[in-house]
Amino acid sequence: MRGVFITVEGPDGAGKTTLIEGLMEKLQGNLRCPLVFSREPGGEAIAEQIRSIILDTANTAMDKRAEALLYAASRRQHLVGKILPALEAGSFVLCDRFVDSSFAYQGYGRQIGGDEVLELNQFATEGLQADLTLYCDLPAEEGIRRINEYRSQENNRLDRESMAFHHRVVEGYQELLRRYPDRIIAIDAQKSPQEMLQQALEALYQRYPTYFKSKD
Amino acid sequence: MRGVFITVEGPDGAGKTTLIEGLMEKLQGNLRCPLVFSREPGGEAIAEQIRSIILDTANTAMDKRAEALLYAASRRQHLVGKILPALEAGSFVLCDRFVDSSFAYQGYGRQIGGDEVLELNQFATEGLQADLTLYCDLPAEEGIRRINEYRSQENNRLDRESMAFHHRVVEGYQELLRRYPDRIIAIDAQKSPQEMLQQALEALYQRYPTYFKSKD
Repeated sequence: MRGVFITVEGPDGAGKTTLIEGLMEKLQGNLRCPLVFSREPGGEAIAEQIRSIILDTANTAMDKRAEALLYAASRRQHLVGKILPALEAGSFVLCDRFVDSSFAYQGYGRQIGGDEVLELNQFATEGLQADLTLYCDLPAEEGIRRINEYRSQENNRLDRESMAFHHRVVEGYQELLRRYPDRIIAIDAQKSPQEMLQQALEALYQRYPTYFKSKD
Repeated sequence: MRGVFITVEGPDGAGKTTLIEGLMEKLQGNLRCPLVFSREPGGEAIAEQIRSIILDTANTAMDKRAEALLYAASRRQHLVGKILPALEAGSFVLCDRFVDSSFAYQGYGRQIGGDEVLELNQFATEGLQADLTLYCDLPAEEGIRRINEYRSQENNRLDRESMAFHHRVVEGYQELLRRYPDRIIAIDAQKSPQEMLQQALEALYQRYPTYFKSKD
């Protein structure tokens, strides 16, 4: 049985983290193969070092293309050090963000251009894409409203972005939905966490029934 | 007067450093514009942080594509933070290594592929190339012989490369000479340092006579 590479995507505040926690709980013990969760930099030592440069609040002179290159470098190390070995071992891999995030955040949010960022990431991944992507679909305003409501002020450079930035990020994700209708499944993030989880589980079961021990 | 971007390239042991020192001495005070020397990471703070990850001997798990991405990220920061401002100020910029080094070392040496590495660097430089490149042209064997003879064992990861690696690097440079006959000038590195310097100065004077106060 070959591994399956699932990514979870979405703008800030869309409930990605809650969905992933729910999925991990429901999938654990219910698959015929190992279940692996990761997120970049994923504990891979070099990827962690790279990420710490990106997130260092002192690095205010960071150029946006340099940032995109660093994300791609961190992604590459994470991919080679963690994701590929897990897939080769036949695991069901659930990954919090992947190339789509760079397309949306660097390509659209920072306005480098989606296609340029995709091409760059092509170099990093040698063309590997997720088998299936669960996209937490939420209008930008609603995401920002939720962030302001629920989260305390986080202290990293990336959180200091404008409303317009977040709008562009969502626009980038919408473009991906149009481009990859087969790969990306939109999960309605205006629904309750329970309903989102149910929709995501249904999608996974439908696509990969043989990996599940039972439906429930 | 617009700035001029000169790069100096070549395999290890070809006399690049000596040539650059000689050029700096000869050009200083003999140009009608400011003279700026740099090499990546060039003291740019973020580029330095990136470079320290690349050169850390503990990072034995460094993937070659991640390495190429980090070089490109460091190059981008150096370019934006140092080279472009110097060119905008109308300087004569002499830079020790640039994109050609990645083509030769990562593309050919590490066998990622020259065109893939060029495309990656296209993202980093937005297409900016050197106006003129002085290539210290030396057969691989002779370079290695010189390194072993003159240099003490250096303690960074990149120096622990095989003979075959150095051969491929020179092959990469030869390919660049074929591709960019107008941009790249081969300086015969089997000649004496004095003769190399003379040939390089001639080339610069011939190409940019109006930047010089006098020929000598």
